[in-house]
Amino acid sequence: MARIEQRLQELGIVLPTPLQPPTGTRLPFPWVRIVGTRALISGHGPTNPDGSIAQPFGKVGREVTIEQAYAAARLTGLAMVSSLKQELGDLNRIAAWVRIFGMVNAAPGFNQFPAVINGFTDLIVEVFGSEVGAHARSAVGLAELPFDIPVEIEGEVALHTL
Amino acid sequence: MARIEQRLQELGIVLPTPLQPPTGTRLPFPWVRIVGTRALISGHGPTNPDGSIAQPFGKVGREVTIEQAYAAARLTGLAMVSSLKQELGDLNRIAAWVRIFGMVNAAPGFNQFPAVINGFTDLIVEVFGSEVGAHARSAVGLAELPFDIPVEIEGEVALHTL
Amino acid sequence: MARIEQRLQELGIVLPTPLQPPTGTRLPFPWVRIVGTRALISGHGPTNPDGSIAQPFGKVGREVTIEQAYAAARLTGLAMVSSLKQELGDLNRIAAWVRIFGMVNAAPGFNQFPAVINGFTDLIVEVFGSEVGAHARSAVGLAELPFDIPVEIEGEVALHTL
Repeated sequence: MARIEQRLQELGIVLPTPLQPPTGTRLPFPWVRIVGTRALISGHGPTNPDGSIAQPFGKVGREVTIEQAYAAARLTGLAMVSSLKQELGDLNRIAAWVRIFGMVNAAPGFNQFPAVINGFTDLIVEVFGSEVGAHARSAVGLAELPFDIPVEIEGEVALHTL
Repeated sequence: MARIEQRLQELGIVLPTPLQPPTGTRLPFPWVRIVGTRALISGHGPTNPDGSIAQPFGKVGREVTIEQAYAAARLTGLAMVSSLKQELGDLNRIAAWVRIFGMVNAAPGFNQFPAVINGFTDLIVEVFGSEVGAHARSAVGLAELPFDIPVEIEGEVALHTL
Repeated sequence: MARIEQRLQELGIVLPTPLQPPTGTRLPFPWVRIVGTRALISGHGPTNPDGSIAQPFGKVGREVTIEQAYAAARLTGLAMVSSLKQELGDLNRIAAWVRIFGMVNAAPGFNQFPAVINGFTDLIVEVFGSEVGAHARSAVGLAELPFDIPVEIEGEVALHTL
């Protein structure tokens, strides 16, 4: 069994089904775009195991607590890993996480974005280890996010040459 | 005639003059930065054929309708393609669109950002085709954008080696 | 003495100590992530010479003037250059600035983001020169930034092969 798959199993993690956008939403772009040994990852949000968008919705610091937002950032990471598996076939093709941009749906006055996006970073380091999983990061407050999700993250990973 | 130029002509598209910033604005950076086979594209907004910033101004969901914002995202794409042509000379040097980051000037409570940024994606796929034109994408709501434009997009394309 | 170090000395610039996050803040990611000849730079804010976060705090156009925000963008550039020196050892390893994403903590109605982020761009061009220092750029208004800093910037530089 592949190394990362084994690690997911050890951690008791089951990846969600790839994101199913709500009915009537047209998303005419790929979740992962591969160019050479780079895999660019479109903005992802938290999903349920069946790929539907996960609740709660709303602004962090108002409808959504910081603990719920941390959990949403972790779910966002799982959705990304699921998209990468779907596109790459084998998650061991990932040589390094490169960069992620963490966006939080911010209530006025809320600014504990690093504590929220740590939900993503902690997951990635748990699964991929601290060398492959390390990534440059920003964690900032957006005015609004699509579907009123509390967290959206985009990023990039580097691939091993085949 | 080059392939992409021909496609633009078939579609009846005339690229705008490169962006003319408003008087008194100092923008000390290039619209396109080439590093090896990567072309990084600075944040662009919608322009008129003469390169001036296109109306309407304001927040989408308040002063600007979703249809107007879709049109602004398309104009933003045209402005980007114009900058790429200016920098590259030949648009056929573009091997692949890589990533775009779509920013919408969001009225409180407005969050249909994918439908807005589709104006950009639809244009790029029309002109470059679904293989070269595909790109990783985020579409999110910003608090404010420069010059009060409704849409700003930055991105990256990969170039063929010369 | 290395070329860029000499240039810093000519300009009378002393780089700050690497960023010291406030007590109780966990930031489990590197300030600079190197992947091949790319160095990805995490979101930085303005720091004091001792690496603590620099005042003033708050929104530009309300608590923070445009002049103060320009100065904060310059300090953010110094913090980034300090992180790059810490990671690379020698700043002459930088072959080209590639891209920066400039985020301003925006008061409602404030949108002079280019004038703010010029504080960063002017510094980088002063230190690295107009060829190496040129970069693709966006300058936009965020709803909230961590620690209530007025400016946050992330980016990327390309490295010479060793």
